[in-house]
Amino acid sequence: MGLVVQKYGGSSVADAERIKRVAERIVATRKAGDDVVAVVSAMGDTTDELIDLANQVSPVPPGRELDMLLTAGERISMALLAMAIHNLGFEARSYTGSQAGVITTSVHGRARIIDVTPGRLRGALDEGAVVIVAGFQGVAQDTKDVTTLGRGGSDATAAALAAALQADVCEIYTDVDGVFTADPRIVSNARMVKQITYEETLELAACGAKVLMPRCVEYARRYAVPIHVRSSYTLKSGSMVTGSMEDLPVEQALITGVAHDRGEAKITIVGVPDEPGEAARIFETVAGAEINLDMIVQNVSTVTTDPDSSRRLTDISFTLPQSDGPTAMTALARIQEKVGFRDLLYDDHVGKVSLVGAGMRSHPGVAATFFAALGEAGVNIEMISTSEIRVSVVCRDTDLDAAVRAVHAAFELGGDEEAVVYAGTGR
Amino acid sequence: MGLVVQKYGGSSVADAERIKRVAERIVATRKAGDDVVAVVSAMGDTTDELIDLANQVSPVPPGRELDMLLTAGERISMALLAMAIHNLGFEARSYTGSQAGVITTSVHGRARIIDVTPGRLRGALDEGAVVIVAGFQGVAQDTKDVTTLGRGGSDATAAALAAALQADVCEIYTDVDGVFTADPRIVSNARMVKQITYEETLELAACGAKVLMPRCVEYARRYAVPIHVRSSYTLKSGSMVTGSMEDLPVEQALITGVAHDRGEAKITIVGVPDEPGEAARIFETVAGAEINLDMIVQNVSTVTTDPDSSRRLTDISFTLPQSDGPTAMTALARIQEKVGFRDLLYDDHVGKVSLVGAGMRSHPGVAATFFAALGEAGVNIEMISTSEIRVSVVCRDTDLDAAVRAVHAAFELGGDEEAVVYAGTGR
Repeated sequence: MGLVVQKYGGSSVADAERIKRVAERIVATRKAGDDVVAVVSAMGDTTDELIDLANQVSPVPPGRELDMLLTAGERISMALLAMAIHNLGFEARSYTGSQAGVITTSVHGRARIIDVTPGRLRGALDEGAVVIVAGFQGVAQDTKDVTTLGRGGSDATAAALAAALQADVCEIYTDVDGVFTADPRIVSNARMVKQITYEETLELAACGAKVLMPRCVEYARRYAVPIHVRSSYTLKSGSMVTGSMEDLPVEQALITGVAHDRGEAKITIVGVPDEPGEAARIFETVAGAEINLDMIVQNVSTVTTDPDSSRRLTDISFTLPQSDGPTAMTALARIQEKVGFRDLLYDDHVGKVSLVGAGMRSHPGVAATFFAALGEAGVNIEMISTSEIRVSVVCRDTDLDAAVRAVHAAFELGGDEEAVVYAGTGR
Repeated sequence: MGLVVQKYGGSSVADAERIKRVAERIVATRKAGDDVVAVVSAMGDTTDELIDLANQVSPVPPGRELDMLLTAGERISMALLAMAIHNLGFEARSYTGSQAGVITTSVHGRARIIDVTPGRLRGALDEGAVVIVAGFQGVAQDTKDVTTLGRGGSDATAAALAAALQADVCEIYTDVDGVFTADPRIVSNARMVKQITYEETLELAACGAKVLMPRCVEYARRYAVPIHVRSSYTLKSGSMVTGSMEDLPVEQALITGVAHDRGEAKITIVGVPDEPGEAARIFETVAGAEINLDMIVQNVSTVTTDPDSSRRLTDISFTLPQSDGPTAMTALARIQEKVGFRDLLYDDHVGKVSLVGAGMRSHPGVAATFFAALGEAGVNIEMISTSEIRVSVVCRDTDLDAAVRAVHAAFELGGDEEAVVYAGTGR
C-alpha cells in the first residue's frame, strides 16, 4: 500500500457536481489500495469574488487580512470535498494549511514554505482516513498568522506535502492530459510527453507553459518526488515528471517542447552611460522593488556617444511580468536623474517563444535551426537568451503563434493525432 | 482607558456598506479612548448558503466537516471588518475562534466553551490594535478540531471573551433598541427596560424573548460582566443587564416584562401506567436523544384505570422546541411497548406566554392577576409552570398575541410612546 498526494485545482472543484466527481476519483484511488492526501484550491471563482468583496471595503486591504479572507475559499472547498467522500462511505478529514503543518515565511500574499510538520495528517492516515488539505495557504513561523502562497501555491503545497510524507507520487490534476510539446490550442498536432525530467519541466514552466508551476517542480526535484500530471476529466495516464538529466539514456530526444508566454513586457532604458556600475545601479533598483526579471540584454550595437559629455552611451532592455510593469517603471523613473539615462520605454506587445530539451546540451546546431525556422516564418527576433537546455527569443506578440508552429514543425515534434483541448482553465 | 467587547450579528455585517458602518462605530469607540474587541457573526445569509452547498454534496454531512465549512462564514466577515477599520486609519487584526483561544467541548454543531486563553488578543490590544474575533466558533480541547457553538454562539463568544479579558462591558448590538417589556411588534406601547438583572434576562431569554441568548447571559452573570444591549442602527443607549436580584432596591418594579414563544411543541403521552419509575424511563429516553424539555405536566386529573389490568393510568405532557419534535417522537415510539403507554400525541399549534419580574417573589397575587387577565381575554390555559420570578402558560398559538397584550396591559407595563420596530432580524 502506497501513499498518493493528489492536487485538484479550482476548476476541478468549481461546483457541487464536480466536487462529487473528484470524491469518486479519490475513493477509486483509495479502493485500489493507496492512502490519499488531496490538496484542493478554492472553488472556481471564489477567490476573485472574495477579492472583489475586499475592494468594496478597502482600496488597499492589508495583506494579513486579505490572506485571512482568501483562505476562506479553500476552507469551503475542502470541507465540501470531505463531506462528499464521507457520503461515499469513506472517512475523510479536512485540514487547513496551518493544521496540516505548512510553515511559511510571513510575507502575506506570497509566502514561501519553510517547513512541513505533517503530524496530524500522518495520524489521520494511520487511522484510515482520507486526508484533505487546503492548498495555497500556511501559517507564518514567526507571527503565527495565516498566510497565502501566491501564484502556484496549491501545486507547491502538494509537492511539499508529498515530500514531507514521503509519498510515492504527487498527482497534479489539471484541464489538459499532461505536458505537451506545445500548447495544443496553437499547435493542433502537439504531442503529449510521457516522461520528462524536472529540469526540462522547470524550463518549460519558467517559459510560460501553464501546466506546472516552477515552485512545485523545484520542490519535487529537491526531494525527488515524482510528479504525475493528469487530466481531471479523463482517466488517461498523463505525463510523469521524474529523474534528472544525468539519468537520461543516450538516445534521449533532442527537444522536449516549445513553450510560449504572452504575459511579459519589455522595458528599455535608453542612453545609459556605458560605465562600470551603472547597470548594477539599475538592476538593484528593480530588485529593490521585488520584481523578478526574466531576460536582460545590453544592446551593444546601439552604443552611441553623448554629444555634450562625449561619454559612451548604451541601451539596456529587459523583460518582466506585465503585472510588475508599472512598479518597475515608477522605480526606474525615480533614479533617472541620478543614473543619467535618457529615456524609459515600455512595450507590452511582446511575446516569448522558447525551445526546451535536455538533449540540446550536446547539439550546438539546435539554436541555428531554431533561428532559421523563425526567419522562414517571417518572425523578427528582438531579444535572445539561452540556458544549457533552452533557447528563448522575444518577438512581436502578433507573431507568437506563427513562431510556435514554425519551431514545433522544424524540430518535427508533432504526433499523428490531433491533441484534445478541454474547456476551462487550470489553476 | 477601558476595554469594550462589542458583538455584531449577521444582519449588522450583511454587506460591504454595513461592514463599513460597523467599522465607523468601532473607530468611534476607539477614539473615545477605549480598547475594542469586536465579535462578528457571518455576513447575512452566508451560513444558510453554506449549509445549502453542504446539502448538495451530502444529505447528512459529518459534523466535523460542517463546522469546518460554516466557520468560513465568520472568517470572511471578520477579515472584511478588519480591512474596513484599517481603511479608517486604525490598526485592526482578525482572529479565528481557535486563534483567540476559545477552547470548547468537541460536540460539533453545538460545542460549549470550556475555557478562554486570550493571550494573542491581549498582545494585539497591548500593541494598540483593534481586535476582531470570529463569533460562533472555537477549537475542541481534545481533538484540536474546529467547532461551532450553535444557536446564540456569537453572543456567548462575546460574553466569554469579555469575562476572560475582564472587559468593562460587553455590548450586544442587535436590531432593536434594547430589552422591552414585550415584543413591540405585538404590543405597540411596549417600553424599553433601562436596567435589568441577569436572572430576569435569563428568564426572558428562556421564555422566547429573542434579544439575548441564555448562554450569553449565563456567562455574563457567572463572571459579573455587564451586558449592554443596543441597536446597531441608532446611537440610543439601550438596556443594561447587570447586578443580581439580591442587590435590587426595595422599590423594584413588580414585573419586568412579558415574553412569548411560538417555537415550541407539546407532546402528550397518553395512558402511562401510574407507577414509580415509569416517568423516569420516559424522560431518560428523551434526555438520551439530547433534547431539552421545557415545561412538564403530569395531568393528575386524567388518571384512569386500564380495564384489562386494572392498573392506574395517567397522561404526561411536556413542551420542547419544535425542531426537536420528530427526534423525540421517534425515540418515544421505540419505548412504547416496554413502558406500555397507550398513545403519543404531537401538537405544534401551541404558544407560550410568560411573565417575568424579580419583584414577584414577594407578591403572591401576581399569578392570580395573570390568570385573570388571560381569562378575560378568552385565552384557554393548557399548561402552567412557574419559577421564583416567572409564571408561564401554554395556550393555543392563535391566542398568543391577545394573551401577550392582555397581560402587558393588566400589569400596566406600557409606556407613553410607541416602540420603534426596525426591519430585519437579529442573530
